[in-house]
Amino acid sequence: MGHQHVMDAAKGRMVRHFGELDRAVILMDPALPDSVQEGLEKVTGRTVARLDASSTQEPGQPVILVGPALPDSLRNGQLLWFHSTNAGIDALLASGAWPQSALLTRTVGRMSERIAQYVLTWILAECQTVPSFLEQQQRAQWRRIPSELAAGQLALVYGAGRIGERVAAFLRGCGIRTMNVARTARTLPDGQEVVTAETADALLGRARWVVSALPLTAGTENYFGAVRFGAMRGATFLNTGRGAGVDLAALAEALDEGTVRAAVLDVLREEPAAPDAPVWRLPRTVVTSHSAGITAPDDVCTDFALCWDELRAGRTPALAVDPSRGY
Amino acid sequence: MGHQHVMDAAKGRMVRHFGELDRAVILMDPALPDSVQEGLEKVTGRTVARLDASSTQEPGQPVILVGPALPDSLRNGQLLWFHSTNAGIDALLASGAWPQSALLTRTVGRMSERIAQYVLTWILAECQTVPSFLEQQQRAQWRRIPSELAAGQLALVYGAGRIGERVAAFLRGCGIRTMNVARTARTLPDGQEVVTAETADALLGRARWVVSALPLTAGTENYFGAVRFGAMRGATFLNTGRGAGVDLAALAEALDEGTVRAAVLDVLREEPAAPDAPVWRLPRTVVTSHSAGITAPDDVCTDFALCWDELRAGRTPALAVDPSRGY
Repeated sequence: MGHQHVMDAAKGRMVRHFGELDRAVILMDPALPDSVQEGLEKVTGRTVARLDASSTQEPGQPVILVGPALPDSLRNGQLLWFHSTNAGIDALLASGAWPQSALLTRTVGRMSERIAQYVLTWILAECQTVPSFLEQQQRAQWRRIPSELAAGQLALVYGAGRIGERVAAFLRGCGIRTMNVARTARTLPDGQEVVTAETADALLGRARWVVSALPLTAGTENYFGAVRFGAMRGATFLNTGRGAGVDLAALAEALDEGTVRAAVLDVLREEPAAPDAPVWRLPRTVVTSHSAGITAPDDVCTDFALCWDELRAGRTPALAVDPSRGY
Repeated sequence: MGHQHVMDAAKGRMVRHFGELDRAVILMDPALPDSVQEGLEKVTGRTVARLDASSTQEPGQPVILVGPALPDSLRNGQLLWFHSTNAGIDALLASGAWPQSALLTRTVGRMSERIAQYVLTWILAECQTVPSFLEQQQRAQWRRIPSELAAGQLALVYGAGRIGERVAAFLRGCGIRTMNVARTARTLPDGQEVVTAETADALLGRARWVVSALPLTAGTENYFGAVRFGAMRGATFLNTGRGAGVDLAALAEALDEGTVRAAVLDVLREEPAAPDAPVWRLPRTVVTSHSAGITAPDDVCTDFALCWDELRAGRTPALAVDPSRGY
């Protein structure tokens, strides 16, 4: 019932936006490149200004803002629509109260494709011992190294949203047996298996690859900790979800004991990692500086255009986020 | 007509083998591991001995040999069947005259899958700047680096045999638009495009990835030279075919001029490369020591078993090679 209420409220907001879209001022974060400004102007046929101290909106004029963060000065009824340039919106929602009447949409872009490519890259780099060959090249050393064939191995991908599903599709393209982990077991139309965490956790000892593509919610904080890491038997762990989903101390222990063979961490609880952060010294670990899903400027405009067109057609944008649920 | 004649001769040999299979002695190269010996004995139900000075075959007894190379002492009518532990057989055929009456089969194993994984790995490692992240890890440096999305890019894969086709399938799984290059244009059942070299060469300027999976024949020596490298516009070149297919001096020039963006070379004309070989100093190049298709011991036995069963059923093994054509 509460859920129904939230959805209705969201729809109510949508109607409001549709009516006010035409008289709103369109602003964007000053740090965004010119190409985004040009792209947004092309989509809307309107002038798009950078948000700054001298922003030109009149008192009471509705505001559409495109950017990574929402300034406190716009956390009020004046904000009509905020389009996030990021897909992850937990930092945005944690940074202050969300203005009840404002629409929130996000840039997904080709993020799921980017993250899928990221995960497959680091899996294959380990199978093909890319670091060893780079070293041999530097030393002018000819030494044959057999590869590990990923085909037929088991990968567990925690998360079955757009990203998790795309990751699974890329892995299956290389013959890796892949299961997505979600609340409800099902088989997707393309034959992809989605299993519950109970089922997946029982397979941790047989998995060669364990991938976290989980969003950060109350239920996923420290989701990968001593229990799950301790149940692995030589899996490589990759985190493209949220840093707070991983207990780094437990990971360090599992790497020492060998239940985790190697780790690839795109995200950390504390970013950026300081030069003296212990994570840089974890054995057989690579930290990739939250780069897996970096959104290209094009993506922001493409996804803003999708939302714009849906709003003008009176529909709820598919990329709208319910701020009370966080996704 | 000449082709027809060769095929008939091959069939004639096959009949001979079928009859003599039971009384042949089965030998294997002394350097092969015990696991291969055990595997071959399991397949044949017979004793398999290592080939050495005191090998036990009687004069005139037919010989089946499994190994990487054919000793001169068996280049005669006594050799019934040679099963190569490698897929590439040009070195074998170049090492001396092939005994006319002998059957030649080869181990393909999961080689096409291995090479496909190799090619995709090095493409993705460049897209995801794996070398930069490995360096940043060593320096404890947090720096976000955007990835290059391979999806939508064009790859030309010269060669449309098992290996070329599997490479294309892996690349297409990541959304890379991939064309195989062969003598005859066609569309494969799965929608994969096969184009002629004329068509492909005209696309070299638009390709992001150019892969050689060509066998070495008289027509492919120095196939990639000044003309093809000069026609590229920033493609990365990967060679998993044969080293002699590439003119290294022309590649060096193209890397200097930038028509070739980077190179990944699994095979070289002269192997192993000496520590002072110029190839180690080519810019933006990685040499991987002929490792892409390293055959696992299991693969030798699996493919020998396939041939054995086909011969006993009176059929020409699918893995038979026509020595006069070289593939």
